[in-house]
Amino acid sequence: MAEKGCQDTNRLHEIIDESLLAHIAIEHDGCPTVIPISAWRVDDHIYIHGAKNSRLIRYLQSGKTCSLAFTLFDGWVLARSAYNHGAHYRSAVVFGQFSTIEDTDQKSKLLDDFINQIAPNRAKHVRSASASELAATAVLSMPLTEASVKISQDPVDDLPSDKDFPVWAGILPYRTQVGPLIADAEQAQDMPIPDYSMGYGDRWSK
Amino acid sequence: MAEKGCQDTNRLHEIIDESLLAHIAIEHDGCPTVIPISAWRVDDHIYIHGAKNSRLIRYLQSGKTCSLAFTLFDGWVLARSAYNHGAHYRSAVVFGQFSTIEDTDQKSKLLDDFINQIAPNRAKHVRSASASELAATAVLSMPLTEASVKISQDPVDDLPSDKDFPVWAGILPYRTQVGPLIADAEQAQDMPIPDYSMGYGDRWSK
Repeated sequence: MAEKGCQDTNRLHEIIDESLLAHIAIEHDGCPTVIPISAWRVDDHIYIHGAKNSRLIRYLQSGKTCSLAFTLFDGWVLARSAYNHGAHYRSAVVFGQFSTIEDTDQKSKLLDDFINQIAPNRAKHVRSASASELAATAVLSMPLTEASVKISQDPVDDLPSDKDFPVWAGILPYRTQVGPLIADAEQAQDMPIPDYSMGYGDRWSK
Repeated sequence: MAEKGCQDTNRLHEIIDESLLAHIAIEHDGCPTVIPISAWRVDDHIYIHGAKNSRLIRYLQSGKTCSLAFTLFDGWVLARSAYNHGAHYRSAVVFGQFSTIEDTDQKSKLLDDFINQIAPNRAKHVRSASASELAATAVLSMPLTEASVKISQDPVDDLPSDKDFPVWAGILPYRTQVGPLIADAEQAQDMPIPDYSMGYGDRWSK
């Protein structure tokens, strides 16, 4: 994939916020291992959560350095030559160590932030985590101090000698469409449907 | 994230084929590092390609064990309780070592397969790779012998005591929409537009 470095903190934050899906690399039994995981951002930290006794959480709590990638795939570049095909994407790879959020109120607030990023304004309407649910959940934080942002959105770039080659060339776009909501089967018929579209802009299903 | 194991080879293949985007974990300077990369499947192997002299390719050619994740994110489970929120996803994590495809014809055929998976039937229409372009490109293969498939698509699962909690519950679906094609600005007006929709089924933009 063609790559373009980008140091802009705003772009880093945008990619993390739009993705919420990360892939984390850890070492497991001497082998670099990749695991998909949800992650969210508040200010200049990212956060993950998991069961307190899970293997991944305990590994990360040991303070080992790891990296996470947030990747948004935007499409394929279909060039006239096989060789110049490529991808459009936005990716952020961050490096660091996680530390554990011990304070229960802070933990609860951060989990609310996560729910609100998935579904704007939802946290205050759901049944909050009980003391035992909170105790069973670990929330870990990592400062966004080391990150590599790559954005590839260039047009087709064929050799001058290929410009007249008789094949269609251009972009095959991919986009994520969010919604519409699908109600739980046990939902009461008169339950008002929330409007989460404001969190997704153009990505909300029309 | 809730997890569900699945041993079905067909599901493994479907996830790889629908994704084509992988995240690979390698060790770099003693730190587990994750990198987004395109990968495709033919029969029971996955393939990646890259510049012959790139650091990643040379690392993988040394025969080190690595892992790759293919993840399709399908949506959020919005439960009545904060604690029971979760994700819908399909993921495949594969483990193994890459080896190098040395045979030029086989390399060329595999790169054609990749283009045809991006855009059905396209490879025979583009300007094929020259001998020097092929020589500059490394194609690596890994057998699909060790893989972990997880599919999470369960409905909302709240505690019985939460079922009457007065908040909307259900699924917030995410789906990838592919196309429509965007022609290169230098395209001749009378160039026929290919139909790649047959490769994408329901995901092709209507």
